[in-house]
Formats: sequence, structure tokens, C-alpha cells
Amino acid sequence: MIIDCHGHYTTAPKALEDWRKRQIDALGNPAAGPKASELKISDDELRESVLGAQIRIQQERGTDLTIFSPRASFMAHHIGDAQTSATWAAICNEQVHRVAQLFPDNFIGGCMLPQSPGVRPETCIAELERCVNEYGFVGCNLNPDPSGGHWKEPPLSDRWWYPLYEKLVELDVPAMVHVSTSCNACFHTTGAHYLNADTTAFMQCLTSNLFKDFPTLKFIIPHGGGAVPYHWGRFRGLAQDMKLPPLKEHLLNNIFFDTCVYHQPGIDLLLKVIPEDNILFASEVVGAVRGIDPETGYYFDDTRRYVDAFPALSEEGRHKVFEGNARRVFPRLDRALKAKGL
Amino acid sequence: MIIDCHGHYTTAPKALEDWRKRQIDALGNPAAGPKASELKISDDELRESVLGAQIRIQQERGTDLTIFSPRASFMAHHIGDAQTSATWAAICNEQVHRVAQLFPDNFIGGCMLPQSPGVRPETCIAELERCVNEYGFVGCNLNPDPSGGHWKEPPLSDRWWYPLYEKLVELDVPAMVHVSTSCNACFHTTGAHYLNADTTAFMQCLTSNLFKDFPTLKFIIPHGGGAVPYHWGRFRGLAQDMKLPPLKEHLLNNIFFDTCVYHQPGIDLLLKVIPEDNILFASEVVGAVRGIDPETGYYFDDTRRYVDAFPALSEEGRHKVFEGNARRVFPRLDRALKAKGL
Repeated sequence: MIIDCHGHYTTAPKALEDWRKRQIDALGNPAAGPKASELKISDDELRESVLGAQIRIQQERGTDLTIFSPRASFMAHHIGDAQTSATWAAICNEQVHRVAQLFPDNFIGGCMLPQSPGVRPETCIAELERCVNEYGFVGCNLNPDPSGGHWKEPPLSDRWWYPLYEKLVELDVPAMVHVSTSCNACFHTTGAHYLNADTTAFMQCLTSNLFKDFPTLKFIIPHGGGAVPYHWGRFRGLAQDMKLPPLKEHLLNNIFFDTCVYHQPGIDLLLKVIPEDNILFASEVVGAVRGIDPETGYYFDDTRRYVDAFPALSEEGRHKVFEGNARRVFPRLDRALKAKGL
Repeated sequence: MIIDCHGHYTTAPKALEDWRKRQIDALGNPAAGPKASELKISDDELRESVLGAQIRIQQERGTDLTIFSPRASFMAHHIGDAQTSATWAAICNEQVHRVAQLFPDNFIGGCMLPQSPGVRPETCIAELERCVNEYGFVGCNLNPDPSGGHWKEPPLSDRWWYPLYEKLVELDVPAMVHVSTSCNACFHTTGAHYLNADTTAFMQCLTSNLFKDFPTLKFIIPHGGGAVPYHWGRFRGLAQDMKLPPLKEHLLNNIFFDTCVYHQPGIDLLLKVIPEDNILFASEVVGAVRGIDPETGYYFDDTRRYVDAFPALSEEGRHKVFEGNARRVFPRLDRALKAKGL
């Protein structure tokens, strides 16, 4: 079975976007804004939104199950206040849950959190618990920069985040460290901010004792780990200069990289440099890059093709990357699959 | 001949750092601060500072000439105001010039610019001209984020920067896009901020018509281009989705990457993915990573070893990466070498 640990609901019916626009238009006077109950999306609309997109692509590429979360760039935690984010996160998570209920063989939920700049992360616990306990979600997306490119929150290693980590550990849920849209003109959202955040988060973990404090906390760093595997020697060297343990020991019980790297040489490097226990298959479909690579004739984001083409992956390694690691990093996913006899 | 296009004067005598400390201590009352003339460093001290470091390493590794610039993390443009930076840049550039005069076969200068947050870049032109015309410097380091990790300046594609670009083009001097120390707790300086800035700058260029406006402007993106070569498929795909020309045509007449990537798989990817016309040998010695890689027994930053070990580089390609591209991208370097019969 092939599990894609990183897919967003980027194809939601337009009604969702329209509702959000109304919410934003009413930021100055929330009482005049839309109620959550005013969002009307039928099951048929939900079906249609994924049948021709994510599900078609799963079938075409031979992948099975996607850990599905709200559209990352639309989380936009910098907009409004904590109440704005709470309402928006609840709505987005609900749509993901409905899709996962309609297509339980294709999707299992990961939630966005109702983060808001400067607001303590423990305010996200209620929504996290709701998604995990009521919806059966197996993961969450944690935004290290709710300011949207201004980086005003403390690093992920700061105690600021610890109450949320305690809950993640208690629930046995990993976090994908994933920023949202950039409202800083310096950073293109998918071309710079996403990759920078991946590198930044890794380095925040490297320079801290976070995983001494939380030995079972697990982070997935998406987009192939940003710049990290490409500069693995730099990071190993920096850690060594800081008298830290080898990275494998220091970080790799807790940090995992996905395979959202959109060309063969990138995936080859990832699979060569990072231990196969720490790589989870993902495509980000339908995601940041949607076209066909003229150099290959295949979709840029058809990452299964690159993993399959990597010559040095053993059958065991292949199983880990496509399925085993996801089941290990997302224990609730494993339990859900086992409950289905899978 | 092997030209290292990226070396900083990280080993300057302590008197330089002490002077800077006094300058910073007197920020509130600059009249009480040190005068430039109070910095006393003898030629012998300068000699000693590089003989056992950069020059020894050049000899050990068989490289010849380094384009040498002030220590990047000490530029710290966020400290004080434009006058603070003007005095500091002039002092740092002068030390580099003196070293290059003492060891003209080993070093040729690249300058730091007296940038300051929110201050128009044309204020840097006088120092740039001084370094190029009086000192014979051949390049400069341009900081896209003088705020030190808060990213408050407009993107490099903004007209804000154009007066400086006009001067760079007139002088026929390329810019290495290089940030300085991070004063944002989120970003580790050499492990996150440097790499993020490389990726950010590339994407700023990608999403703009900068090189339509300045067809002969040249940027070197250091640290192997940040995350860019590893995610080359992502960037090609993003450009294609935006209906931009292929990256080779859109950016690669103007953008070049150095080889400061500290392990073999990273250099292999760089040399495989990026055209050999766009790669300039560099080591950043003495730089961010100073130890020996226990996996190889060699220094992490001994990048010549990785380039030499890349099997698919032709003799012509090797010449380009080690010498030819540097002479092409730094025309004043080429002229200086030719004047010496090299």
C-alpha cells in the first residue's frame, strides 16, 4: 500500500473561499460576518471536488491513501485574531473530515490548528482534540510562523510551544511543520517561504534540547526537508562544531522528511543522504506545482515515479518509505488501518 | 588555476572586533565612540592572521586565488544607522584591501556595502566606487535583508535597488547576494538565515523582470544556491505555471551558484542539475563549518575534493567551474589576472 503523507484540500468548492472572503471583509465587525452555519456545501459538491482531482491522480499514479489536511496557503493564521482562526480552522477541518468520511479508503484527516500571531499555542488544543477524538484525524499541521513571513513567534524549541507538544505526545499525533501563505513581500509563498520554514524549523530543533524534553514528539518536515538534505554535510558539520551528538542520534528519532521534491536528482539525493527510516512518501497533490515537466513528459509532482526510479532502494526500504514509516510516525493511522484489517 | 569566489576575512585580528564593540557601545553617543584612526593593526598582524589560516588552506588544498571580502556575519547592517555602517564598512574593506596588497597572488578584494535598514541603496555607491576604483576590488556582497532576519526591505526586484544596480552594471561588478548575522531568534545565522536568503533571492528574481531591465547584471547566489538546485524541479515547475520562459533563459544569464555545499552528494546534485556555465568554485574558507567530516576524514569545507570527485565533469567543465566562470562573471578579476600575464 502506498500512503501519501502530505495532501491538502486545495480543490474545495468555491463556497469555502467565498465564506472566507466574507469573514475577512467583516474583520472590523465580526458580528456582521458570516456564521459557520451559512457555509453550505453538499456531499455531491465535496465528491466532485476530489473525484476529478486527488482521487483521479491517486488512481493514475497507483497510490492509495492520502493524509489529507486543509489547504496550507489558506490557513493564513495572520488574518484576524484567535477567534477568526478558530472559526476558520473548525470549518476547514470539518470539510476535510466530510471528504474523509465520503472516501474513507482514499483519505484520512490531518487538521490545521487555529493558531494566531502572539496567541499561546495551547489555545489550539481544543480543536486538535476535537479533530483527533471526534473525527479520527491522525496528524496536524503546525505553523512555526503564524505571522505569515514575519517570524515573530519564538522558535519551535521554546517553551512557548510546550503545552501543545504535551498534548501531541499524549494523543500520539505527529505534527507536520508547515507554514501558510506569506504576507511578507520578500517571500514567495511556495517558492521561498515554505522551503525556508522547513530549513528554519530543522535548525531550531538542531540547536535545542527539544527532543530530550519530548523524546516521543515527532515532526515531519515537508518539501523534502527544505534545504536540509542538500546541505546535510553543513548541518552535520555545524552540529559537530557545536559539540552536539551526531544528527542521527540528536534528531532522527523525531524528525522525518517527506518526498515532495519535484525532480529525480532531488529525490535521489534525499534517498541517498537521509536514512530510509526517516523518509515518508508524499506528493503534495494537488499542490504547488501542477504542470508537466517538459524534460520528462511526466507531472513534476508525480513523486512516486522518482522514488520508484531510485536504484538503490531495497524492497524493505521501499516498503518503509511508501508505508511502514507513515504507519510508525502516525500511530493512529496504523491503528485505523489495522481496524480495517489492513 | 583555481579561483575560490567566496572567502571572508573571518580571521581578522581581535583589534577589529574590539573596535566594533566600542562602536556599538557608543551607538547612543557616537561622538564618544572610537575614530576609525584608532584602529591599529600592523602588517605583521594581518600577515599572521591569514598565513596560518586561509593561505595555509589554499596551499593544502591546491587552490590559488580567493575573492576575499569582510566577514559576512560581522557586517551586521542592522546595527546602528547609515553612518555606523559607513564607518564600519570602510574599515572592514580597508583591512581586506591591505591583506590583498600583502598577498596579491592569494587574494583579490570583494567589498561589503554600508547598507542600513530602510536606507536607500544608492547611499552605498560611494563606498562601492572607492573599493573598485581605488582598491581594485572585483565584486561586492549585497545584503538583501539589512534588518538581519526581519526582512523589511523590498525584494531585490524592486526599483528601490535599481540605482545600485545601475552602478554595478556601469562598473562591471557582480554582486554576491549574502545576508549577515540574524538578530531574529527564529533563524540560526549560518544554518538557516544564509540558506533561506539564497532561496529567497532566487525566487525574487524568478518572479520579476529584473534581468530584462538589467541584462548584464550578475548575481552569485552562495551556499550552493540555498535550496534551489535541490528543488530545481519545483522552481522549473513554478516558472512554467507562471508562464515564464525556461529558467535557463529567464535567469541563468545572470544568476550563478557557488559550490559551498559540504558533502559529496550535494555537490553531485549541484553539478548534475545546474549548467556548468553557472557554477563557480568556492569554499567559504574559513567559514561556517570548520571540522573534519568523520564519514570521510576530510574537512567538510574542502569543496575542491567534492568537485574533483564528480565523475561527469569534462575537462572543459572543470576549467569553467574552477576558473573560467569566475573570470567571466568577475570581468575585473579577469582583467587583473591578464595584467599579470595569467
